[in-house]
Amino acid sequence: MHTITGIRVFRMNCILFVSLLFFSCGKQVNRIEAGTSAKNNLYQYSVIDALLAGVYDGEIDCETLKAKGDFGIGGFNAIDGELYLNEGKVSRIRYDGHAYPVSDEEKAAMAFVTFFDPDTSFTIRENGLTYDSLKLRLGNVISGNRMYAIRISGSFNRMQTRAPAPARKPYKPLAEHLITNQYFFKLDGTRGTMVGFCFPAYLEKVNVPGFHFHYLTEDRQKGGHVLDFMSDSIDVQLGRLHRLTLDIPGTREFEKAPLAKDRKGELNYVEGGE
Amino acid sequence: MHTITGIRVFRMNCILFVSLLFFSCGKQVNRIEAGTSAKNNLYQYSVIDALLAGVYDGEIDCETLKAKGDFGIGGFNAIDGELYLNEGKVSRIRYDGHAYPVSDEEKAAMAFVTFFDPDTSFTIRENGLTYDSLKLRLGNVISGNRMYAIRISGSFNRMQTRAPAPARKPYKPLAEHLITNQYFFKLDGTRGTMVGFCFPAYLEKVNVPGFHFHYLTEDRQKGGHVLDFMSDSIDVQLGRLHRLTLDIPGTREFEKAPLAKDRKGELNYVEGGE
Repeated sequence: MHTITGIRVFRMNCILFVSLLFFSCGKQVNRIEAGTSAKNNLYQYSVIDALLAGVYDGEIDCETLKAKGDFGIGGFNAIDGELYLNEGKVSRIRYDGHAYPVSDEEKAAMAFVTFFDPDTSFTIRENGLTYDSLKLRLGNVISGNRMYAIRISGSFNRMQTRAPAPARKPYKPLAEHLITNQYFFKLDGTRGTMVGFCFPAYLEKVNVPGFHFHYLTEDRQKGGHVLDFMSDSIDVQLGRLHRLTLDIPGTREFEKAPLAKDRKGELNYVEGGE
Repeated sequence: MHTITGIRVFRMNCILFVSLLFFSCGKQVNRIEAGTSAKNNLYQYSVIDALLAGVYDGEIDCETLKAKGDFGIGGFNAIDGELYLNEGKVSRIRYDGHAYPVSDEEKAAMAFVTFFDPDTSFTIRENGLTYDSLKLRLGNVISGNRMYAIRISGSFNRMQTRAPAPARKPYKPLAEHLITNQYFFKLDGTRGTMVGFCFPAYLEKVNVPGFHFHYLTEDRQKGGHVLDFMSDSIDVQLGRLHRLTLDIPGTREFEKAPLAKDRKGELNYVEGGE
């Protein structure tokens, strides 16, 4: 459990117990003031509907992004790889399935990051735990109306990810691009860390509603956007986010993009990989 | 034009001219950095879908709100009146149609404010200009993908507003409450100022997409949520907003509200007053 340090770790097999513990241990703080602290605020550049529309070139570089958070996910310009940020280090997982270090000058089309400060941690031990069963379990301990940063570490018998091949101009909408430019990876028997978020329905055009994770192996060699996994034991850290700060891109491409369209179907395809 | 000071005021009768002028005068700034300045950033407490769901009691008081902006709109706790903030002064327009001063301790259910710094100003002279024709004209000079703060001053031959009567617990959803608790006002031959915003479609569950104004007469006696108006000459100030900072309420009512529901129809009723 290399990513869980200095935090009480609750071990249990029963999610009901987790739920009770979570609610009874909730910190009582002034939410307005809590939102002003640097920790557990979400910083986001661009919106998911712009990415879906094919707005692939952003203005924010990784140096700026790391000043906004030490934990998060996103996509690079020209959607050349999945962006993974954990403990202040950015990795790019490209369509060959390999993870690469990223220079401060590299830019992101969209990214959302926070200075992660988990308020709740626990271990789930369950034979054959999948992504779907994790979603059900986490759905019992978090509020669907709030935002959470989530870090999950463990050994994964199975880990299925994907990464897009870079797009060439003129850019097509993301769902269309992915039809022929999405690469899938099976990383069996790996150990690593998923970083991600859970967002409420009212942010559905701003970000991805529900759960969304990117994965990197412990040796920082492989990873991608998480489609599914199987594990017998995972360590979960949750940080409730009180504030979202959203920067609207200043580019002409963003300004001209068809952002009024309903892109729910496209989003489901893009996130699910099928 | 008491509210337009220190800014070039362009007078014209032709909206085409306004459009050309607007685009040619656009400031070129680094959008990421521009977003970090205190001016023209939007601060928002709670989301429109929570208000629609009947989450009427917020934690933010007017003192805190005024520290986030000197210009904006919102609704008070128990939706007891329309919130109007201009030049740092908060007014409450109640269901008797009268405007009242507001103490720093009063709390808002939802509010969105900015330190308003208009980047574009012009006058529209047109006999019988209505809200609908204003929307068409402004729609030609702003991008539907961006956020704008808008201040409009003038003499209004006709000004139609509304304000809600306060709700009693248990709170009903807003559309339901308004059916029997909405009061309409005709403020004919008044002079005053509309403050408001235009938001993009991708914020549709976070705020009201499109235009949204509250009005206060120059003598600070009357006003309300703007439903329609008629004027022969108005002074318009626009400020493009680069950043949205959204605070999620910490209340149990927010946490438990049914926020996954599609409330588009309710929003149309609530905003249009019909």
